[in-house]
Amino acid sequence: MLRRTLRKIGSESRNSCSRSRSLVAAPLRANRWMTNSEAPSNGSIGAGPRRAPLSIDTINKRVINSEYAVRGEIVQLAQKIARDLEEGKASYPFDKVVWCNIGNPQILGQKPITYFRQVLALCECPQLLSHPHIREVFPEDVIARAELLVKAIPGGLGAYSDSAGALIIRQLVAKSIAKRDGYPADAENIYMTDGASPAVHYMMDLLLREPNDSMMVPIPQYPLYSATLTLYGGRLVPYLLDEGAGWGLDVAHLRQQIATARASGLCVRAMVVINPGNPTGQCLSYQNMRDILGFCREEQLVLIADEVYQANIYVGNKEFFSFKKVACDMGLLEDVPLVSLHSISKGFVGECGRRGGYMEVTGFPSEIKDQILKLASINLCPNLSGQICCALMMNPPQVGEASYEQYRAEKSAILGSLKRRAELLVSALNRLDGVTCNAAEGALYAFPKVTLPETAVQAAKQLGKQPDWLYCKELLEATGIVVVPGSGFGQADGTFHFRTTFLPSEEDIGRVVQALGDFHSAFIQKYGGLQKKQPALATAANGDNEY
Amino acid sequence: MLRRTLRKIGSESRNSCSRSRSLVAAPLRANRWMTNSEAPSNGSIGAGPRRAPLSIDTINKRVINSEYAVRGEIVQLAQKIARDLEEGKASYPFDKVVWCNIGNPQILGQKPITYFRQVLALCECPQLLSHPHIREVFPEDVIARAELLVKAIPGGLGAYSDSAGALIIRQLVAKSIAKRDGYPADAENIYMTDGASPAVHYMMDLLLREPNDSMMVPIPQYPLYSATLTLYGGRLVPYLLDEGAGWGLDVAHLRQQIATARASGLCVRAMVVINPGNPTGQCLSYQNMRDILGFCREEQLVLIADEVYQANIYVGNKEFFSFKKVACDMGLLEDVPLVSLHSISKGFVGECGRRGGYMEVTGFPSEIKDQILKLASINLCPNLSGQICCALMMNPPQVGEASYEQYRAEKSAILGSLKRRAELLVSALNRLDGVTCNAAEGALYAFPKVTLPETAVQAAKQLGKQPDWLYCKELLEATGIVVVPGSGFGQADGTFHFRTTFLPSEEDIGRVVQALGDFHSAFIQKYGGLQKKQPALATAANGDNEY
Repeated sequence: MLRRTLRKIGSESRNSCSRSRSLVAAPLRANRWMTNSEAPSNGSIGAGPRRAPLSIDTINKRVINSEYAVRGEIVQLAQKIARDLEEGKASYPFDKVVWCNIGNPQILGQKPITYFRQVLALCECPQLLSHPHIREVFPEDVIARAELLVKAIPGGLGAYSDSAGALIIRQLVAKSIAKRDGYPADAENIYMTDGASPAVHYMMDLLLREPNDSMMVPIPQYPLYSATLTLYGGRLVPYLLDEGAGWGLDVAHLRQQIATARASGLCVRAMVVINPGNPTGQCLSYQNMRDILGFCREEQLVLIADEVYQANIYVGNKEFFSFKKVACDMGLLEDVPLVSLHSISKGFVGECGRRGGYMEVTGFPSEIKDQILKLASINLCPNLSGQICCALMMNPPQVGEASYEQYRAEKSAILGSLKRRAELLVSALNRLDGVTCNAAEGALYAFPKVTLPETAVQAAKQLGKQPDWLYCKELLEATGIVVVPGSGFGQADGTFHFRTTFLPSEEDIGRVVQALGDFHSAFIQKYGGLQKKQPALATAANGDNEY
Repeated sequence: MLRRTLRKIGSESRNSCSRSRSLVAAPLRANRWMTNSEAPSNGSIGAGPRRAPLSIDTINKRVINSEYAVRGEIVQLAQKIARDLEEGKASYPFDKVVWCNIGNPQILGQKPITYFRQVLALCECPQLLSHPHIREVFPEDVIARAELLVKAIPGGLGAYSDSAGALIIRQLVAKSIAKRDGYPADAENIYMTDGASPAVHYMMDLLLREPNDSMMVPIPQYPLYSATLTLYGGRLVPYLLDEGAGWGLDVAHLRQQIATARASGLCVRAMVVINPGNPTGQCLSYQNMRDILGFCREEQLVLIADEVYQANIYVGNKEFFSFKKVACDMGLLEDVPLVSLHSISKGFVGECGRRGGYMEVTGFPSEIKDQILKLASINLCPNLSGQICCALMMNPPQVGEASYEQYRAEKSAILGSLKRRAELLVSALNRLDGVTCNAAEGALYAFPKVTLPETAVQAAKQLGKQPDWLYCKELLEATGIVVVPGSGFGQADGTFHFRTTFLPSEEDIGRVVQALGDFHSAFIQKYGGLQKKQPALATAANGDNEY
């Protein structure tokens, strides 16, 4: 019976393969694999071996080629050292590893916001709401908020919600966006996500059709963008941020980059902007943002606005504007497809491990939003705890509510501390010989430029590594401090950087800065000192120093 | 300065493009996009338009072609109806929608396990641990477990953990696996995941290199497999489960399918097995499992074992064996690359919205495990709440502990109720005219086969839809019951099915069954009744009825 069924499938297949697929197309047919009418006629595909036992040579090369330096080789070395220290297996000139490679505040002692954790605890265990002593343990507004959420989210934390997120959550997020920007926001444009990363994956999947599709990405960038571009088979079109101009953008440069990309045969689908920047921390000026929106409209690009650091701004003369707001100011909301990302991981909330965030999608045709919803539905839904925390972040206690004072105090303490540590670190870096560091206007990082002795550059080359990798490795081995080489983010040709967070606690950061300074002097001395006059660009014949 | 930098990048680029990429390769270079040495020389790629403004025609066709029926068109219609009912906008012959399309127990009234929620609430808000009245609210073992987890997980719920999951969590999971199987399990082989779905995505990404790569997938299957195969550009090689033999497997059929696939030019990378089955609910026999492992070894396939329903087994004569255990019994653990998936969403735990689970990876070369870790690191880490819940699920209260009795009672009540509802539903379905339904030995679903009048088949064809889609749509409109057409899962040519959960509460399920039966009779009558003798295969010229 089975064999007869399959023969029938085979014989009926031929005329159905060419039928086009609609949005809700005829379901998968057994036959499809039997004909290769969908395979390219290129002889090189289809002539491959019929067996490919699992080995490093038979896995997807895009996976192999993807790199994510924030948890790359230096970090893996650090993990080994940390294990050795814990198990007493080896001795190092330090007693603990200091994780400055990743924006993960709560692992370095930053406390969560009490109000959020209290509401979430009650959502976890709604039975507590009817406990006779509940009001001795939780403030009234916490109880009220939890009751509202438990009632409004069918099945609570334990049930799959709508794939874009529970309606109440999206409504709360939309309401907050509208309040922030002064323009309406529609819950139907909100897709909750497990952190901001899934949103980037969706956009890569949606927009990259073939190897010549590409996206414009700032250099330096957060390497999620380069990693996912590689993974999804697209190309990266860089646009360099100008270190000498506070990491500012130059629209003329954008135009040149896109022209060169197109002349090479690339189709540029989107532009990524990270604002405030990562690793650079700069806040774009309002004018720059207008320029970018105008550029995206002219060039018909999707704008992907990574705004996860919007709550981390430390300088009085800068203010966060969302790209959504500026697009509305310019009357361009319907003309520029815009994806705005936010997350609970950063700001002063720092709930990295919870994985929460959202993307707001505007200027997209509704049939494409349907496709985004479908992508989200394949993974069912984002986790409810992250959804709730995101809604709480966007709708915190208000003046007059029981938790307001504590919330305000906690927020203020964290942001004030971040600002102090940012300034301390950046000024300390600027005092080091051959090191310059732009101010961290926002985000959680410093991205100092380090002038390295030519001997060090050559030593790295001998190892087949980037010079800043060598610097970071030796820093780790001398001090236990873990930072990420600038080559992992991209940088102007011939320059070297590293990214460090300024998240070590205020108690620790003085010692971290001291250790870093001592190491730096020793490193420079080890490699023969800095020449009085450096060549404008340190070059290597094989292009090692690009960026 | 920028322009000079880029010119330099361009001129230095040519000789670096050909350098091979190692695991920690030289970082992304600005130049890479400038040359298209990596683009195929096929004229059709690279000659496309340089602009592609966002529209339904310019997005990735794989996204358009991906389908996930569990939240497909029928479900979207149901959502619209539910909104209409809530807003009083339209009237229907029923007052509520009954969601039988998805295994989402807590939305239909199943209670979470108290112990898990109590521990998680304390992990959410560790401040509670020092509250003077804590012991009036939480049992001693809950407090102890939370204290252990808070201490052992650096940064708690709010910090990114290791990308494979926090060490303590992986150790707890490994310990439990070893206890279940009687063979050791290594924490280094465990990768925590946000539900089981991300594990499937990783495997698709890892193993599908080009359009002729494929995986063997059971028909009927859980459509995550067909959706992700399409999304990642691979092919599905079906193997039919035999409905007449309790959805059993036939190894001869597997051999035939793989031979035909290879003869068509496909390279088969892996075999997916869902055990207990979804939508079919069957538990594979131990012998079948031995056959499958032997087959995978002979044919050098990765075995992907979706075991998320391992705690849902309702028949006394069947027992769950993990593929890991059987592989160990056969001495094949190092010879068959095996990925075993589990999740907190199913069983009696039902924590769908939390997104937790793991994959255990055995028989993989370590350099490939490194690549899996890298893929996980790009998304940073799975959510901590899901990680903790998974560890709790695998390490529940033990005899003698304060929470044991309540835990045992809750577990027993849920499983007993699931079993009763499974039996009630399946026997009711079997009483319907022209409907047969295999017993639900496990999982959460019934997958009845429905004989449809030829008139109905033709009516569906007129609409460009599958006949079982039509049945499901009319069921929804008549009763508010939401089920998923069998065509969404795949089925033998000429047969029609639908998948329904048996999750409506024991109070509701009687009425659901009644409404379903009334609808069925009306539907058959509406379309002219069943012929006394059905043709062996209902065919349509264009192959609509494949599967």
